[in-house]
Amino acid sequence: MYDFRSDSADCAREVEKGLAAWLGTERLSGPGPAPERLIAAMRHGSLEGGKRLRPLLVRQAAAVFGMPAAASAQAGLAVEMVHCYSLIHDDLPAMDDDDLRRGRPTVHKAYDDATAILAGDALLTHAFALLADPACHPQADVRVALVLELAQGSGAGGMVGGQMRDIEGESAGLSGAEISTMQAMKTGALIRAAVRMGALLGGADPRALSALTAYAEAAGRAFQLADDILDVTATAEQMGKATGKDAAMGKQTLVAELGVDGARQRLNQTVSEALSALRTFGPKADGLRATARYFATRET
Amino acid sequence: MYDFRSDSADCAREVEKGLAAWLGTERLSGPGPAPERLIAAMRHGSLEGGKRLRPLLVRQAAAVFGMPAAASAQAGLAVEMVHCYSLIHDDLPAMDDDDLRRGRPTVHKAYDDATAILAGDALLTHAFALLADPACHPQADVRVALVLELAQGSGAGGMVGGQMRDIEGESAGLSGAEISTMQAMKTGALIRAAVRMGALLGGADPRALSALTAYAEAAGRAFQLADDILDVTATAEQMGKATGKDAAMGKQTLVAELGVDGARQRLNQTVSEALSALRTFGPKADGLRATARYFATRET
Repeated sequence: MYDFRSDSADCAREVEKGLAAWLGTERLSGPGPAPERLIAAMRHGSLEGGKRLRPLLVRQAAAVFGMPAAASAQAGLAVEMVHCYSLIHDDLPAMDDDDLRRGRPTVHKAYDDATAILAGDALLTHAFALLADPACHPQADVRVALVLELAQGSGAGGMVGGQMRDIEGESAGLSGAEISTMQAMKTGALIRAAVRMGALLGGADPRALSALTAYAEAAGRAFQLADDILDVTATAEQMGKATGKDAAMGKQTLVAELGVDGARQRLNQTVSEALSALRTFGPKADGLRATARYFATRET
Repeated sequence: MYDFRSDSADCAREVEKGLAAWLGTERLSGPGPAPERLIAAMRHGSLEGGKRLRPLLVRQAAAVFGMPAAASAQAGLAVEMVHCYSLIHDDLPAMDDDDLRRGRPTVHKAYDDATAILAGDALLTHAFALLADPACHPQADVRVALVLELAQGSGAGGMVGGQMRDIEGESAGLSGAEISTMQAMKTGALIRAAVRMGALLGGADPRALSALTAYAEAAGRAFQLADDILDVTATAEQMGKATGKDAAMGKQTLVAELGVDGARQRLNQTVSEALSALRTFGPKADGLRATARYFATRET
């Protein structure tokens, strides 16, 4: 029986340990030694916090093909580094202007804007180094496929493009369909990349990759719906960050469009879609199933 | 006979064409379509300008091993995209706060800070996609080596770390040795990566790679010395950007340390070092030789 609580806690612990090891002077050095202040800001923006859901998805997707957790761990760290860099940049005054993240000062508050920009840039850069590194996977063709997948998920047609659409939408207003596209890019694309990277690590054939992509897209929508519902219903204390911000900033979400009850109903449908995309897989996909169900019930 | 003017002009033209082709809706698309505003800002920050010296170095280093220009072009574009992203972020008000670049408004002036941050992020991300793409080189092991090389050159122990040290130095002050380390990282590391990437594309053996690395490190120092001298001696009109800024911002350079004449002398010595690192190579290294000499004589 797959135990979501224990597997996700193990994964989060390993991600914490892995990031702490990678974000040190030795492994960050290049032609020169990485400056202490930069390392400290990178660590501040990525250690001690987060549910580490994206590495968990990499691990669970790889597990569908019988891969042990250790074999997908480094790719999971790379995805998490991209997620953390995006939070650091999104929190900047020029973007969402957030002072608090996971109950602590955001990187630009703890350091300054310039350091936060550079720490984000460095996390993004080193994420690709982790994927290209031989310890990530023995085959170079798999490693380049991972680089491409992460770049496409996090680039102009993915996460970064979604953030751009989100900012544009604050002034221009977005239709229901435009909100869906924006969210599929801003949040969905990296979740999709995480699942597909797990599948690539496991050597998925095109049919399995396509089923897992369908799972990931539905799971991404479910995750975002849950997040938007919590922004309305949860307290800042529960979430470790400001809530009610979407409405205050004029950000349009599907909760504004459908109401909280309508959004909850849509969330349940979306989780069902995610589960049905996994129907051809046996018990090895129980991890992915549990994560989809978790999105419907999470309280923080 | 190698003709620097014609080869560098050809290279610049091809880089312009290549970037214009890659920075379009089709090639930037991922799970969703890249937003028009983001594409426009990415193009603003990378098209119509620059000497394209880094792609030229990739091409010239690959030529040492008999590689035709077309075979190293895509890797050259990736390096140039990283260079352009770094300029976009460095120009931000939170960093160097520049309004003018290559005679045109900087990206955050033409758009806004948020768009400039995202455009830089996206250029960096897609640079790695270009390297991982099969059209970059037929062998996956070469492509991952390129990804690693570019990440190390542009990461916390390279370019980004150098920018961090430069910012820290504005308030703390730097010794002559610290200025050298900072510059070896901020400017030198990407030049080093460009040369080494050309060598990797050409299948360099460890001995050749080591000689070309020595060349690249000297060439990078020469480039930076020339830049610092021009910041003092050239006009803004010649340079297409503000000059005299280093002193105004309290940035320490070797010109402040050695004086203009002392810096010119050091520049000539450094170019000689670069040339002597190439002594085991025949006429196929004439491109690299010409670029090193160009650093000693450039006027813009």
